[in-house]
Amino acid sequence: MKIGFIGGTGDEGMGLAYRFAKAGHTCIIGSRAAEKAEAAAETLRAKDGAIRIEGAANAAAARDGEIVIVTTPYAALADTLPALADVLAGKIAVSTVVPMAFGDGGASLLAVPEGSASQRQQALLPGARVVGAFQNLSAKKLLGERAVEADVIVCADDGEAKREVMELAEQIEGVRGVDGGALANAQMVEAITVLLVSINRNYKARAGVRITGIA
Amino acid sequence: MKIGFIGGTGDEGMGLAYRFAKAGHTCIIGSRAAEKAEAAAETLRAKDGAIRIEGAANAAAARDGEIVIVTTPYAALADTLPALADVLAGKIAVSTVVPMAFGDGGASLLAVPEGSASQRQQALLPGARVVGAFQNLSAKKLLGERAVEADVIVCADDGEAKREVMELAEQIEGVRGVDGGALANAQMVEAITVLLVSINRNYKARAGVRITGIA
Repeated sequence: MKIGFIGGTGDEGMGLAYRFAKAGHTCIIGSRAAEKAEAAAETLRAKDGAIRIEGAANAAAARDGEIVIVTTPYAALADTLPALADVLAGKIAVSTVVPMAFGDGGASLLAVPEGSASQRQQALLPGARVVGAFQNLSAKKLLGERAVEADVIVCADDGEAKREVMELAEQIEGVRGVDGGALANAQMVEAITVLLVSINRNYKARAGVRITGIA
Repeated sequence: MKIGFIGGTGDEGMGLAYRFAKAGHTCIIGSRAAEKAEAAAETLRAKDGAIRIEGAANAAAARDGEIVIVTTPYAALADTLPALADVLAGKIAVSTVVPMAFGDGGASLLAVPEGSASQRQQALLPGARVVGAFQNLSAKKLLGERAVEADVIVCADDGEAKREVMELAEQIEGVRGVDGGALANAQMVEAITVLLVSINRNYKARAGVRITGIA
């Protein structure tokens, strides 16, 4: 499958692209500047010459991706997504975005008018099948070689899109997809990331989350 | 140690009292009505005749508890806590409370002016050493006999109080205490509970949470 990344040159986008490319998919890293995206793709190809990763402008990544994963910072959503709304209509558009600010007291969760970054993405991409996922995975772990050992809690109002993203998540070694319910529940999943950032600082770790008791 | 429970007649208060009493502590279940508290204590003593659990009015539970654990519903905090502020000054006062509403779409997180129920408890008990903990443990599992197999993420601004509650948490079989950082981080821990309620419904489970990557 071809997977497009919108704003994919940061650690989270590159980490997910690396893992999905290793699972056999073709990944297209998108950026506002195509040359920056190509440099990111080249960095990943240098890690593993057998994987298929290319760089492109965001519009081309959105057009060519069968599934599209949004990995921009929260603050960039409003500038980036509206221009892609038409080409993403009907497609699965995953939100990995966490509305987070960093201050003297560490990370904190920003209030989002729609409730969560996933719901904001849905508002900006009204025709897309928005799914919240991957927010709690450590980008540094994704860019490494070891199993990630964490759950991906997947939230969506479109049940078929949710199942497809849960299956995709499980192609990352050590990851289990968990049905987190409706898209509105992404608010709580995004909150977990802010907590993990704090735990990472306390424990000098790259923490993740597992749900227990669901077999 | 004597542990007092404010509003302890619900499942969460009874479940925690049951586990801490089995660990050798004396638990005082508090309620607005002392006779209701005594009935709850009697229910637990009937499960295990060797444990020390008694019922009392909330004021007596707050006075006699060396550590006090607040297990009221969120909506009851403002009516219940101010009368206990003097007797709880200087004591560890744990918040297990989750600001949650149930509607057609399932559970949702309520906005709290102070940020979280834990911070609201601190505002209502200005002299107490407030610690957020235990929000993510299944009350039904606590009332059972098996190991709980979940982490308790503990948040507080008072580091000594936080460590004491982390150690207390680990006296519940299968539980690990995790340092969740400052009291403000309880907002994210409370959010996890709302997500677990949704996961419980999807999976017909009693889910909990583990943090990976910090061992």
